[in-house]
Amino acid sequence: MSTPQKSTDQQLRERARAVIPGGMYGHQVAPGAAYPQFMRGGRGARVWDVDGHEYVDLMCSYGPVVLGHRHPAVEAAVAVQNEQGDCQNGPSPVMVDLAELMVGTVRHADWAIFAKNGTDATTMCCTIARAQTGRSKILVAKGAYHGAAPWCTPRPAGVTEADHENLIRYTYNDLDSVRAAAAEAGDDLAGILVSPFKHDAGFDSELVDHGFARGLRQLCDRKQAALILDDVRCGFRLHLGSSWEPVGVDPDLSAWSKAIANGRALAAVLGNDRFRDGAKNVFVTGSFWFAAVPMAAAIATVKALKEENAIEVMDRMGTQLRDGIVDQANSWDLAVNYTGPPAMPYLTFVGDTSYELGSVFAAQALRGGAYLHPRHNWFVSAAMTGADLALVLEATDQAFAAVRKHLGQ
Amino acid sequence: MSTPQKSTDQQLRERARAVIPGGMYGHQVAPGAAYPQFMRGGRGARVWDVDGHEYVDLMCSYGPVVLGHRHPAVEAAVAVQNEQGDCQNGPSPVMVDLAELMVGTVRHADWAIFAKNGTDATTMCCTIARAQTGRSKILVAKGAYHGAAPWCTPRPAGVTEADHENLIRYTYNDLDSVRAAAAEAGDDLAGILVSPFKHDAGFDSELVDHGFARGLRQLCDRKQAALILDDVRCGFRLHLGSSWEPVGVDPDLSAWSKAIANGRALAAVLGNDRFRDGAKNVFVTGSFWFAAVPMAAAIATVKALKEENAIEVMDRMGTQLRDGIVDQANSWDLAVNYTGPPAMPYLTFVGDTSYELGSVFAAQALRGGAYLHPRHNWFVSAAMTGADLALVLEATDQAFAAVRKHLGQ
Repeated sequence: MSTPQKSTDQQLRERARAVIPGGMYGHQVAPGAAYPQFMRGGRGARVWDVDGHEYVDLMCSYGPVVLGHRHPAVEAAVAVQNEQGDCQNGPSPVMVDLAELMVGTVRHADWAIFAKNGTDATTMCCTIARAQTGRSKILVAKGAYHGAAPWCTPRPAGVTEADHENLIRYTYNDLDSVRAAAAEAGDDLAGILVSPFKHDAGFDSELVDHGFARGLRQLCDRKQAALILDDVRCGFRLHLGSSWEPVGVDPDLSAWSKAIANGRALAAVLGNDRFRDGAKNVFVTGSFWFAAVPMAAAIATVKALKEENAIEVMDRMGTQLRDGIVDQANSWDLAVNYTGPPAMPYLTFVGDTSYELGSVFAAQALRGGAYLHPRHNWFVSAAMTGADLALVLEATDQAFAAVRKHLGQ
Repeated sequence: MSTPQKSTDQQLRERARAVIPGGMYGHQVAPGAAYPQFMRGGRGARVWDVDGHEYVDLMCSYGPVVLGHRHPAVEAAVAVQNEQGDCQNGPSPVMVDLAELMVGTVRHADWAIFAKNGTDATTMCCTIARAQTGRSKILVAKGAYHGAAPWCTPRPAGVTEADHENLIRYTYNDLDSVRAAAAEAGDDLAGILVSPFKHDAGFDSELVDHGFARGLRQLCDRKQAALILDDVRCGFRLHLGSSWEPVGVDPDLSAWSKAIANGRALAAVLGNDRFRDGAKNVFVTGSFWFAAVPMAAAIATVKALKEENAIEVMDRMGTQLRDGIVDQANSWDLAVNYTGPPAMPYLTFVGDTSYELGSVFAAQALRGGAYLHPRHNWFVSAAMTGADLALVLEATDQAFAAVRKHLGQ
């Protein structure tokens, strides 16, 4: 009997287990046994794992890739800037170009600060709110994800009580709960941190109630506190501006990262003039925060988003994806919740609290060539074509069939 | 009368003031009026500002550039990896290659976790120490810089008492002060955070007393607490391994960033097997933490450091720089403190508490073509040639002359 040869992914997993705690960490632990852990590359909306399997990419690197992998205009801008300079003794001119572009693109923004992680940006927003107001308490929605520093990481290991001491929880879309939290903060309210919509891991997504958003704005105005929008995950995927511009509510401070440089490491805090002094007074920095290549990539990304009507394209492809999947679920007589905006959908099976059916669905979709996720919202990129969508829908139809078969009915 | 034309740097500064709070932030605020704020690029040990002035680079982007700007082997590795994939749905094989390389290169390391900022790495070390020990208190040296998150940033704006609640201060190289801090922590001691040498901003550097380092190790062993070495600034500039390997003391956890990828955004936590479970249990992640290009750059950097005997080269060039500058100071009859290891020197004038003489010196050195810093340690790269050194020493001789003239004696 011959031993079946191990795949490249299996070999890498074994080596990784020896030198990386748990074999992998964070949000990129493979989302199921059927999934490859290691990826080789991608072009447009297609990606390949290390064993050469090709998938239509519905995760977009968990958000950063918005124009598709290796977008020509972004890659060209990266090559030009890299030839000049990246990480230097001071920033490059592109830093000013990008700050001007962000301020010109996002309605509430009068200034910009750049960093590397979404967590850098959300943390900095809280620090600036505290510096400007001289107060401590930040209101945060229960279950919301704002990063992986001790104050916001969702897992308790290594986190102390002091890390949460200045947070007070409210319930998303429940203005009364916000008022109660604000009352608890009393005269020590520095700001309210909120996501553009409720996209908590493990729960169906919930769009923002416009009255809720307006209520937060009024409360912050009344209390002279900062309204902080965490646009890290949604920014430049739902709107070319802050994700609450279509809602008609402008935050004082906003946190950005993921999609702004189409996959290059960049984050930003944008703010209005009322919070400029606070931003001036905090000491925030990082060894690579002034690197020019990701800034050049961001400039090219914003330009391409405009030129390609990318927001509209993602909304349209996302709507077709939703309509196709919801039809399929009906035709297989399977009850699903398909939530979130079209460009960032989230699919669960009704009553499937342990993700048993979701895992069967996702594993079969993967085998059919669609890389989606059983427990996290998906991301539609502007590179997705009609052919990509057709392939995805063929895969999801097989995936619903697999769920039906799994249920044995 | 015609208005003198503004330099490119002046024009960029004016534009920056409108869209960046204070015009610039963090450690890359230009270190004096004579300095350019914006840089254009670099090759080897030479850098150019946006107005085309060339300098020998003694700051190395505040540490990241260790092999010189645009090192051919690193750039080639970057180009190859970039062509494949960077930020994807999962890590690339280079992540495993790099983790194995780090574990094979750094004596105390059994595993590696990668991130983006030095602050990510120091923060994560504290979180892992707490997760592993189930305790809260971390001992930190007074005045030490460990990053710019609220718990460690050196400026108080926006920082709350809770951010410091689990820190207890000791004095560097003073074992009694560490014992007193440990006694204060009682049975809640999670770890001791320490820099390889004392390189606090605004103070002459102080090399580590070997007995002090051994004492920390013994204390941590007795208390079952983590010895955490912050090798962010020094790592791979003083030794090809942890900076305390020559001291004979191994930490349990170490934080790395700056030089490990020759300027690409990467940080790492290395740890031993006693802390592997703690590392497995914390939730730490970031959108770009798994990006492959900086990891490919790091592999090429470590290889080049070995092949070029870069540590020895930097020590030798740094020693010649020190000898030359100290001789010049003597010949101009100026009393200076030249402290720190040869590859990371720090120069102050005796009694010059307001940096008045240091600023005159640095500004004249800059005019002479040497980019050094009046209030921060310098960095010698492995790309520095004899010709570069000769140019620097010519500039520093003029700079001492300017100080002598400034003193009017």
